[in-house]
Amino acid sequence: MRMVDLIELKKNNGEFNKEQIQFIIDGYVNEKIPDYQVSALLMAICFNGLTAKETALLTQAMEYSGDIIDLSMIEGVKVDKHSTGGVGDKTSLVLGPIVAACGGKVAKMSGRGLGHTGGTLDKLESIPGFNIYKEKDEFIKQVNEIGLAIIGQTASLVPADKKLYALRDVTATVSCIPLIASSIMSKKLASGADTILLDVKYGKGAFMQTKEDAKVLAKTMIEIGKHCGKDTRATISNMNQPLGNAIGNSLEVIEAIHTLKGKGPKDLEELCLKAGSTMLVQAKLYENEDSAYKALKEVMYNGQGLKKLKEMVKAQGGNVSYIENIDNFEKANVMIDLTSKQTGYIKTLEAKALGVVAMKLGGGRMTKDEDIDHRVGLVLNKKIGDYVVSGEPLLKIYARDKVSDELLEELYHAYEIVDEKVDRPVLIEEILK
Amino acid sequence: MRMVDLIELKKNNGEFNKEQIQFIIDGYVNEKIPDYQVSALLMAICFNGLTAKETALLTQAMEYSGDIIDLSMIEGVKVDKHSTGGVGDKTSLVLGPIVAACGGKVAKMSGRGLGHTGGTLDKLESIPGFNIYKEKDEFIKQVNEIGLAIIGQTASLVPADKKLYALRDVTATVSCIPLIASSIMSKKLASGADTILLDVKYGKGAFMQTKEDAKVLAKTMIEIGKHCGKDTRATISNMNQPLGNAIGNSLEVIEAIHTLKGKGPKDLEELCLKAGSTMLVQAKLYENEDSAYKALKEVMYNGQGLKKLKEMVKAQGGNVSYIENIDNFEKANVMIDLTSKQTGYIKTLEAKALGVVAMKLGGGRMTKDEDIDHRVGLVLNKKIGDYVVSGEPLLKIYARDKVSDELLEELYHAYEIVDEKVDRPVLIEEILK
Repeated sequence: MRMVDLIELKKNNGEFNKEQIQFIIDGYVNEKIPDYQVSALLMAICFNGLTAKETALLTQAMEYSGDIIDLSMIEGVKVDKHSTGGVGDKTSLVLGPIVAACGGKVAKMSGRGLGHTGGTLDKLESIPGFNIYKEKDEFIKQVNEIGLAIIGQTASLVPADKKLYALRDVTATVSCIPLIASSIMSKKLASGADTILLDVKYGKGAFMQTKEDAKVLAKTMIEIGKHCGKDTRATISNMNQPLGNAIGNSLEVIEAIHTLKGKGPKDLEELCLKAGSTMLVQAKLYENEDSAYKALKEVMYNGQGLKKLKEMVKAQGGNVSYIENIDNFEKANVMIDLTSKQTGYIKTLEAKALGVVAMKLGGGRMTKDEDIDHRVGLVLNKKIGDYVVSGEPLLKIYARDKVSDELLEELYHAYEIVDEKVDRPVLIEEILK
Repeated sequence: MRMVDLIELKKNNGEFNKEQIQFIIDGYVNEKIPDYQVSALLMAICFNGLTAKETALLTQAMEYSGDIIDLSMIEGVKVDKHSTGGVGDKTSLVLGPIVAACGGKVAKMSGRGLGHTGGTLDKLESIPGFNIYKEKDEFIKQVNEIGLAIIGQTASLVPADKKLYALRDVTATVSCIPLIASSIMSKKLASGADTILLDVKYGKGAFMQTKEDAKVLAKTMIEIGKHCGKDTRATISNMNQPLGNAIGNSLEVIEAIHTLKGKGPKDLEELCLKAGSTMLVQAKLYENEDSAYKALKEVMYNGQGLKKLKEMVKAQGGNVSYIENIDNFEKANVMIDLTSKQTGYIKTLEAKALGVVAMKLGGGRMTKDEDIDHRVGLVLNKKIGDYVVSGEPLLKIYARDKVSDELLEELYHAYEIVDEKVDRPVLIEEILK
């Protein structure tokens, strides 16, 4: 078999069989096939796509390119959840605890933030002492004991994805649905959970720009899951504006704590309860979403969820006093309001623009090796559909030092304020399975 | 400027400007842009193409990536000719001498053969002593003195094409019209001639499979020529069967000598006279093709053309006695006939299959570094439209040693013999300008 012939095959819109896909992934991981052949193939895939069967075969070849996490020593159904990434998305920090408080087994491997999107690991590390590195045995023990652990992906998990993603990033082949789907699903499958819930986001702050694309991506991943015998479902949710109000690492942890006290933003609460009820049904712990929803809402309001978060923080070496008293979190040096120059209804609030500003403030990273400042970020006072009077604050900026006029301008440009009343956007469009 | 953004631009069917194309070519030649980004771009170009303007800009950027040959010290209009390659294509060996004998200035840089197609340099080197390496001054002196020189391309000619071609070869991005056009034209333009005649071949033995594709390629190259102010024309010729009868290096030189005595195969003679008359009109030496055709036919039949070939061979160190007496050429060890098992008309005669066999016999090379045997090859007795009786020889094989039954089978499969009369194919479809 020659790689050049396989590239030609895909260029001519042919379909790969299992051996051919295995040859490509093995050859690439073992450095027998060079980057320049793989990038040409990736571009051909961007144009001609992959069939459902090819996508599943690619995902499996990638999944088995490295270590497979065996969670069979954890009792019960292991539920996993993955968000395609957005701005202000602290769902896992709320969802993990409430699902675990209702009996779910959440053994989650998470990632770091890049560009305008944040990452769960970075958020957790704003709690002093919190350790995202755990040996496998410890990880399993923790989930068996408290039902919840969130750790970093090990370097040996899906090495094929690491190589492919790095190559896609520099060859303009990131935005290709079968490649995105196989990248996400290979990691989820290798992580060993029994069920997978995907939160596929669409809109200006997300990977997928349109609802339609998000649905295609979701369906592609559900198909892969089915092919691999895993109960896989997906929420399709709006990321035209940030989720909740806080953007920035410790700011988002604080917002998650508020939410676990029943005092969080309603959109975040709603997403966590809806996604959580699907997960509990997937885990076969509840018969239907309604009963699961009620149970989740109960633990959200009675402190059981918050207790679960504290248990996890303690088990992973974090300082629990920060969860108990949010005033312990170190404050940013500079806190200033961005005030509205207009009176009217907020029509747009560009999630991506806010994510970029949060990154520029030091809360995110452009490249993988940058350090981040956990204190900085933004907290929104007004979101789409809200009425604002000229002079009222739109948001508060938490910064290391003086905020440039340029950045204020950039932030203000993220808002569009109009005279006519604007409807609040629907957050969850659909739940697919 | 970032290469990844330029790949994205072409992926989204955008158009490059001059600076962007210059950035790509400079970056690639200077090794600032890696192979894997260029191969992704090449694949995107295979799908989305290049506009006429982009193709011309790419060609010029490639042309100026290395040395430009200055032929201004040669008096008169310098005419050049290029064939897109085929099987049995010894046109240059006949065309160069007859055009020079009619006053044309032919300062030609040629290439070697690869795969099933032969190369003019390999053919010339079957004449003992013939030297394809000449210093620039010597090259110019020779053309000024005798009107004709055929040498190898220097390593410093269009280095961008060398790198790009090598990459295209292993990434399934060879068959893309704007890339083929810019590759050919950048070398022709850098070689410094005033006019260019392209022989664009189509059919089973050619790069372009269909007449339509050949015409698109020809028009693309003519457009580039116009953009660069060079009189560029193209013949569209049939390569479903080999040109002439001989395939193999010394066998083709011998056939060229026959043709320069007015005793060559009629298809080869016709292509040389038609292409030659276009070149002489391009050189403004004749007012129209008809008068040029007559003059060329005269020098083909009166020995002036053959004399010109001898002058070139002598000027380039070759042993002229081989031209004077073809029996001097060393014979292949084994000569056997492939006889027909059927009676009927020859309907197809797969040029590519014959080219591949000639290569396997040792007359061509699979990779650039292989040695070749100048003696071996094939000489056809029967071509498309000919009537053959069972037991009659279809062709003669010239081999180093015993020919395997497998190879004989392979050769026989190149023929299709039918009962119904078959028309002889038209060789030159059109001459475009």
